[in-house]
Amino acid sequence: MATIHPSVDFRSDTVTWPTPAMVEAMATAELGDDVYGEDPTVNELETLAATLLGKEAGLFVTSGTQGNLIAALTHAQRGDEAILGEDAHTFCWEAGGIAVLGGITTRPLPTDSRGRMAIDQIKAAIRVDNPHLPHSRLILLENSSGGNNGAAIEPEYFAAIGTLAQAHQLKVHLDGARLFNAVTALGVDPTAITAHVDSVSVCLSKGLCAPVGSLLVGSEAFIHQARRHRKLLGGGMRQAGGLAAAGIIALKTMTQRLQTDHDNAQALAQGLATIPGIAIDPAVVETNMVFFDLAEGVAISPEDLIKALKVEYGLHIGGYGDSRRDRCANRTLRAVTHYWIEPPQVERLISALRTILTRP
Amino acid sequence: MATIHPSVDFRSDTVTWPTPAMVEAMATAELGDDVYGEDPTVNELETLAATLLGKEAGLFVTSGTQGNLIAALTHAQRGDEAILGEDAHTFCWEAGGIAVLGGITTRPLPTDSRGRMAIDQIKAAIRVDNPHLPHSRLILLENSSGGNNGAAIEPEYFAAIGTLAQAHQLKVHLDGARLFNAVTALGVDPTAITAHVDSVSVCLSKGLCAPVGSLLVGSEAFIHQARRHRKLLGGGMRQAGGLAAAGIIALKTMTQRLQTDHDNAQALAQGLATIPGIAIDPAVVETNMVFFDLAEGVAISPEDLIKALKVEYGLHIGGYGDSRRDRCANRTLRAVTHYWIEPPQVERLISALRTILTRP
Amino acid sequence: MATIHPSVDFRSDTVTWPTPAMVEAMATAELGDDVYGEDPTVNELETLAATLLGKEAGLFVTSGTQGNLIAALTHAQRGDEAILGEDAHTFCWEAGGIAVLGGITTRPLPTDSRGRMAIDQIKAAIRVDNPHLPHSRLILLENSSGGNNGAAIEPEYFAAIGTLAQAHQLKVHLDGARLFNAVTALGVDPTAITAHVDSVSVCLSKGLCAPVGSLLVGSEAFIHQARRHRKLLGGGMRQAGGLAAAGIIALKTMTQRLQTDHDNAQALAQGLATIPGIAIDPAVVETNMVFFDLAEGVAISPEDLIKALKVEYGLHIGGYGDSRRDRCANRTLRAVTHYWIEPPQVERLISALRTILTRP
Amino acid sequence: MATIHPSVDFRSDTVTWPTPAMVEAMATAELGDDVYGEDPTVNELETLAATLLGKEAGLFVTSGTQGNLIAALTHAQRGDEAILGEDAHTFCWEAGGIAVLGGITTRPLPTDSRGRMAIDQIKAAIRVDNPHLPHSRLILLENSSGGNNGAAIEPEYFAAIGTLAQAHQLKVHLDGARLFNAVTALGVDPTAITAHVDSVSVCLSKGLCAPVGSLLVGSEAFIHQARRHRKLLGGGMRQAGGLAAAGIIALKTMTQRLQTDHDNAQALAQGLATIPGIAIDPAVVETNMVFFDLAEGVAISPEDLIKALKVEYGLHIGGYGDSRRDRCANRTLRAVTHYWIEPPQVERLISALRTILTRP
Repeated sequence: MATIHPSVDFRSDTVTWPTPAMVEAMATAELGDDVYGEDPTVNELETLAATLLGKEAGLFVTSGTQGNLIAALTHAQRGDEAILGEDAHTFCWEAGGIAVLGGITTRPLPTDSRGRMAIDQIKAAIRVDNPHLPHSRLILLENSSGGNNGAAIEPEYFAAIGTLAQAHQLKVHLDGARLFNAVTALGVDPTAITAHVDSVSVCLSKGLCAPVGSLLVGSEAFIHQARRHRKLLGGGMRQAGGLAAAGIIALKTMTQRLQTDHDNAQALAQGLATIPGIAIDPAVVETNMVFFDLAEGVAISPEDLIKALKVEYGLHIGGYGDSRRDRCANRTLRAVTHYWIEPPQVERLISALRTILTRP
Repeated sequence: MATIHPSVDFRSDTVTWPTPAMVEAMATAELGDDVYGEDPTVNELETLAATLLGKEAGLFVTSGTQGNLIAALTHAQRGDEAILGEDAHTFCWEAGGIAVLGGITTRPLPTDSRGRMAIDQIKAAIRVDNPHLPHSRLILLENSSGGNNGAAIEPEYFAAIGTLAQAHQLKVHLDGARLFNAVTALGVDPTAITAHVDSVSVCLSKGLCAPVGSLLVGSEAFIHQARRHRKLLGGGMRQAGGLAAAGIIALKTMTQRLQTDHDNAQALAQGLATIPGIAIDPAVVETNMVFFDLAEGVAISPEDLIKALKVEYGLHIGGYGDSRRDRCANRTLRAVTHYWIEPPQVERLISALRTILTRP
Repeated sequence: MATIHPSVDFRSDTVTWPTPAMVEAMATAELGDDVYGEDPTVNELETLAATLLGKEAGLFVTSGTQGNLIAALTHAQRGDEAILGEDAHTFCWEAGGIAVLGGITTRPLPTDSRGRMAIDQIKAAIRVDNPHLPHSRLILLENSSGGNNGAAIEPEYFAAIGTLAQAHQLKVHLDGARLFNAVTALGVDPTAITAHVDSVSVCLSKGLCAPVGSLLVGSEAFIHQARRHRKLLGGGMRQAGGLAAAGIIALKTMTQRLQTDHDNAQALAQGLATIPGIAIDPAVVETNMVFFDLAEGVAISPEDLIKALKVEYGLHIGGYGDSRRDRCANRTLRAVTHYWIEPPQVERLISALRTILTRP
Repeated sequence: MATIHPSVDFRSDTVTWPTPAMVEAMATAELGDDVYGEDPTVNELETLAATLLGKEAGLFVTSGTQGNLIAALTHAQRGDEAILGEDAHTFCWEAGGIAVLGGITTRPLPTDSRGRMAIDQIKAAIRVDNPHLPHSRLILLENSSGGNNGAAIEPEYFAAIGTLAQAHQLKVHLDGARLFNAVTALGVDPTAITAHVDSVSVCLSKGLCAPVGSLLVGSEAFIHQARRHRKLLGGGMRQAGGLAAAGIIALKTMTQRLQTDHDNAQALAQGLATIPGIAIDPAVVETNMVFFDLAEGVAISPEDLIKALKVEYGLHIGGYGDSRRDRCANRTLRAVTHYWIEPPQVERLISALRTILTRP
């Protein structure tokens, strides 16, 4: 688009605007009324996503939050319980929709430093049939783990959970908002992970640069019901083919270039590690998210640091910790790499941080 | 867009694809991350809608269903009751979301042939404070009335309900999916109607041709809470500025040309009235919706007639009655005019219907 | 109990206090912790109810409202729809709980003067599978029909609905708050009706005189889930055996004497019909409920009449119409006969009404 | 009652049957229709509870679970969040009703060994106003803490939370199922604790021996709304005066004798501490609940031990850990003292356990 983007935005990969190829595709997409199932571009996108992720069918939804909510509404019923990580996006950042709208209780479990619940703890959390207790029904997973430095969790973990879930007749949904980042880092095909779960949502509008939308995939029967739930939420879009055209490019092309973002993130982490006053271990950076802490003794507050970067350098980074206010006291900052971030901008951020933090 | 649209689609005005001006605007819109409130085009659209409709603030949402659902969730709470017409879109065609997701009971009242509940019946339906009963909280209105030939309901009706609602401390939401059709037919400014209600939703993607989206407007406090509910539903969109750019054209330009659609609808109705076998009173066509019945004695079924028009003439029209299955037995058909329908196509439809219905 | 009950209460059969035999049984009942399933008297009552009503299992619940709510929660899920009469107790007088707590939409249909929805209208109300629409799942019936003079609806009606429901895979629940009144009037065994439905609730605390409680019956699997829902509502009671002991007498003994109440109601209706100023057709009185209207031209208001009867004669009767406020304007009154009403008291009420209404 | 209770039941204080004085009072109670607000005994009980707990009004409900659910429904709305201990009864043992029926998300926090969340952690858990997040609204407390050896939490803790809640406009509800045990152990008046919270539920059917029921107390406005919610849940009872008569004795008399149960529990704990193979610290026993573990190396399983006590000695004790299945693997057992347990029975239990555990 014609817009000038003078500032450089590391706050999130959600800030990405469409690539020139996407803008072109959006303007020439074939359209129809998707609520009638007649938008050919949306249909193509849904089929493409299902194929890439090894499922029977797909559904184009407005957001990752909506994809996860629809998945929960479809797999679980009023009075059922979902087991999920205590730092999962579905638990922390989705306004409690699964409980509020779905009547599904959430059972948060501790996670390790890479966002994994212990298999034994999941097993122990599955309820006996007792009227005092909710009915265990669903396990919600996330990959990469946004609450844990974007860790890319290995297929074996999903295989183990899939086996457990089948043994206890539970369903498994994967919040794959950044699944393509995870599989890029792991060097595996997405199906190496998705084969072990019942449904997956992936976001088009994060590192993949599409302006709007996510895909939810699963069995034909699941997607048939999911479509009802999308309507219930008012998530049906009419001539969504323009958005879908960008999504097709996102899935076909943009998924192939994510290693570049990871390399930039690693470079950023290593640069930050050389700055006095910043605490970071570059080894934990597996994908495109760089979390770092202001060391004790650093005088500037996180808020002032964010402001100085923005005002003086046109560089945006993010604070972290709103959802779990107990982390608010901490001094964590976040910088995320994406298509619109290149090595010179990484250098600028490192340099700017060094300057600010070494001021008298 | 480059798409060829060989067939002529009278099924609904939801099938409209964007105008060339919209396609251009979408490709050059200034974008930002709207979940952060930073998409300037979305912000402009929200302000524009609020201004046009005489309210303090606006919110861009995915669909009319979502706008109505958010309004109900925001005005009313679990255990409250909404009074609405028994043929209102919110009652018949939105999957029951107000009750299912909001825990709000719905109290359908009969409507007259133009979709108006009787003021006295509304008054009588307001509950006393009794533990056996829900708490009356909300009145849901619709204009134009899609379930009643698109009737354009006059400002006085809304004034009367506004007075009643204030006296009983009820809120009023207007489903204005086709409000601009109504005010065009009435020859009044939208605020002549919206001044009497607390919130309004209007659709950009019906007669106004934008591909996706609706606007919800109301007080600042209402929209602040509505934004929370949009997030809860997963309705937040990231770089929605492209859609918003089309929406700005929809509100500024397309609202000015709706009389043309109404004229075409009236011409269609009058033409249909001359065909043996079709029962229609052109006087009830006030906006862009033409409902007509197959008279008794007509041999062809509605389904076969729809098919013949499509296959032989490339003309799509709609059946009607799914939500209230008791009307399914009836023989009502629907044709809706919009930007992509011009007089020659109206003539083609009249002519085709005459031919089919006068076959031996 | 030792209490003196100086006034005579025709307002409802819910006002009945326990019989001396019940008081004795309550004081000597064998008890246990019913939440552990160990109260032998509760267990006996549940089995007795299931047997009488021809179902596999029973559950003791706090109230008829709770029994109906649990039935709906168990048969239907979030997003499903229940078809029910527009004057059904479940729709009018239960605070909307089915929608509010269950996320189940309610689809009220008109009823005839005896509370029956037309079979054809029920059939027409069953939805097609369409994402815009709720999923039809449940039919809610009531017998006798409290909103229609306590009409006792015949088994053939339930048979017809049972056949329809099976053909469309719907469940049927019967609100049998006064089922024993209905079957007494009809001269049939309860199973002549209950055989055609999936679940039934019956009240012990109306004409059957037990102080507290209702029974819900259905299949073993249904009651297993219903027990979970009772817990969810906080409806589990601990040493409920005392209440259950009264319930056993209610089911075994009190169900056999209801014709007496019906005879008294008929005598009351015929007496009232002789009073100038009262409009009543005794032929509509089929069970124990007598509704009558103040004729036009009668000067005294219903409220003042109720007050005069109470203050001057110690006779309580009820007004009617709160739930459907549109009936509030009317002049309907209600008198219900029960165990603690005998012919002399019926005569006193007739006489008192005649006196008051013929005053200058 | 006439029932013979041959076995001795330490599983819970919920198993208590009514005292002879209660049986007498139940048989002679003055009754009325409580749904009409006319049962004088229920009214007396509600006033008595409100007075004892220092609140304006009271409501008789079926169970502690129902009292807590009604409190949550009344204080918080769909989309609000309740902060509570991760081992609180409201979180673990009430079927998730707060979320399932109320659309209220639950935010469990860790507790210390006496069931107290850290004040700092509560403070940190209060959310900022952000659409991604639920709205913090309610703090749920419990005293005594059933999940923590029945610890009796001191008034200062409630005072601190009350101050915090007021500062952040949160409401506080106290699940006081065993509040009278707590205040007995602490030697304080109940109001020393209840003055700091907005509402309290207390159970009549645990250590206080009444057969059925709990009381919920709070402000007049709160109880007015709570009464609506009781109806919604189907919790209204008709002639509940018999149950209420037992409840009056429970509150007036039985609350005065709980120290005896605590002394018996302490004696039990000290006796158990002398048995090889049992791990217990008597110092943690503050009220009437005795939790103990089978030490490592003990060959008999908890299940077999429970069975042996029951079959060989007629002594019932409980296992523990169903709600949090991860504790199921552990070897915790529970014995609770109450009115129907006296010192000889405590001795019998100690002796029986010693015999079984020292068998070869």
